[in-house]
Amino acid sequence: MKKPITIAIDAMGGDNSPQKVIEGISIHAKYSKNVNYKIFGDRSLIDPLIEKFSINKNKIEIFHTNKFVEGKDSALAAAKKGKDTSLWLSIECLKNNEADAIISAGNTGALFVIAKLNLKMIENIDKPALSGLWPNNNGMNLVLDLGANIECNEKNLVDFSLMGSALYRALFNNDTPKVALLNVGSEEIKGNNVVKNTYQKLNEIKNPLYEFHGYVEGNEIMEGRVNVIVTDGFTGNIALKTAEGTAKFIVSELKLALTNSILGKISSLLNSNNLKKFKNKLDPRLYNGAILLGLDKPVIKSHGSTDALGFSHSIQVCEKTIRGDLINKIKENIM
Amino acid sequence: MKKPITIAIDAMGGDNSPQKVIEGISIHAKYSKNVNYKIFGDRSLIDPLIEKFSINKNKIEIFHTNKFVEGKDSALAAAKKGKDTSLWLSIECLKNNEADAIISAGNTGALFVIAKLNLKMIENIDKPALSGLWPNNNGMNLVLDLGANIECNEKNLVDFSLMGSALYRALFNNDTPKVALLNVGSEEIKGNNVVKNTYQKLNEIKNPLYEFHGYVEGNEIMEGRVNVIVTDGFTGNIALKTAEGTAKFIVSELKLALTNSILGKISSLLNSNNLKKFKNKLDPRLYNGAILLGLDKPVIKSHGSTDALGFSHSIQVCEKTIRGDLINKIKENIM
Repeated sequence: MKKPITIAIDAMGGDNSPQKVIEGISIHAKYSKNVNYKIFGDRSLIDPLIEKFSINKNKIEIFHTNKFVEGKDSALAAAKKGKDTSLWLSIECLKNNEADAIISAGNTGALFVIAKLNLKMIENIDKPALSGLWPNNNGMNLVLDLGANIECNEKNLVDFSLMGSALYRALFNNDTPKVALLNVGSEEIKGNNVVKNTYQKLNEIKNPLYEFHGYVEGNEIMEGRVNVIVTDGFTGNIALKTAEGTAKFIVSELKLALTNSILGKISSLLNSNNLKKFKNKLDPRLYNGAILLGLDKPVIKSHGSTDALGFSHSIQVCEKTIRGDLINKIKENIM
Repeated sequence: MKKPITIAIDAMGGDNSPQKVIEGISIHAKYSKNVNYKIFGDRSLIDPLIEKFSINKNKIEIFHTNKFVEGKDSALAAAKKGKDTSLWLSIECLKNNEADAIISAGNTGALFVIAKLNLKMIENIDKPALSGLWPNNNGMNLVLDLGANIECNEKNLVDFSLMGSALYRALFNNDTPKVALLNVGSEEIKGNNVVKNTYQKLNEIKNPLYEFHGYVEGNEIMEGRVNVIVTDGFTGNIALKTAEGTAKFIVSELKLALTNSILGKISSLLNSNNLKKFKNKLDPRLYNGAILLGLDKPVIKSHGSTDALGFSHSIQVCEKTIRGDLINKIKENIM
């Protein structure tokens, strides 16, 4: 039997909240076992949604507040709003060991700053990194940092490699993930000094908990030959968004191609099941849930614009990081 | 009537050369007017191909050499091979004003180094940048630098902006291209110091020959709201290759979806015309031909693995840079 776990949930962040958050919880609660949800937000909005989506009340606890961090708040302004916002309270709940992970679909900068104010960094880690799931030919890999740190030194990139491989172990039950550095070529001499020095350091570390596979280029991210791809937050953010933009462009061109004639429409209809499978495989909701690594408790960020299904997937990421014992795996890796 | 121009062509670089180069010339020669091709390479291989592809001999001149730069040569090793390689000779021909542009599908590093050894930099430009065509919702834009300079300062990025907008004017006959910097957010305070300082400088420059549109994120590259997107060579290379990898992944998933059932196969057959149009629009051969900007003559790099059609497109880029008066447009922009 699975041991009971508790997830703290900021119900008020992101588009169309708390509706998508509560519906997301209802989806997750249907297939999960022994998961309790501590929900932070406006009870007058949340209560009717709990009824609407028929959530088992034994599984939830609501903590009322009518103060929220807004999407447009700067991180500083959000922190200054104080300790009564749904975001702050949900993180504080984690800090006080009353939950095992926290998730929010709200303001990313505010989540980072308030999490850093409340939680401790894991010993020997200087900077937290944002790590995301990325589809590839064989399933999924992890890419980090996706934007938490614009400038990184080699110590940071080594830390990201160790934390990323720990996360991969926690999520996918794989004991020796393959780790690579994102670079502009595969030869040892390519790249900037930070990347080259990181390569040297990762080559020297003898850690049985991951395998270092050198450099990968941008076109190899989705090939699936490695499990964890490490880069600085500037490059990672641009790679992620370029991939999103490319996917959007291609899918819209495809839609145009398949519907710009009667014959096209008919044959697409015939093929609708296959096209649906194709669309599902690329559905960004399946990859929702980025993990902020480096703090001594699991902090998960859902995409602000996702829907209930996407939010339920990011709750699933929370559950996996807890059951996969993420924080201890990171500590094992950096020992 | 178009004035006669001459393109110097290294026939020996890249996969399957000189076959693809000569066939590429034959494709280009069919629709071009008043273009002469000076072809550098092994006459014993080239002559039969000229026959095979029925190229009008009045349009070509062959310069024999049996020394070539190999794909595996380092830039230094390539330069040391001396002045008799097909690459060196074709660049020297440009240097001596016996051609108006040079193109090679060979070793990129060698092309850069030998071009820099032979040609002058345009006054006030410190570093050359590699600029490529990128498809978007409204046609094509330019992205630079795609990998010539791993580290760039703000002066370099400003130069790239000015040169990129000149190239856009030369290629697309557009007098005020919209220029943007690639960044991790659209607010002025986002990004690293180099990007932020470049933003300030571009905002201050009052140049009627382009419009500065601030920052774009990776997902906006293909939206088509701007014409020239500027970044350092590390980020640009990773963005380009990530986009290539994403496109390849999606198209292979699509193929799988459309052929994994009898019904899928039949309906794809019905839809083959539309799917062909879709495929054509994404065909990387259409975007072949990267331009090395900053030297005082046009230097064009074809993808090494492209075929004859792709090579003919990059010859077309040569022709456009010459007829569009690229070098003078750059000089106008940086005045």
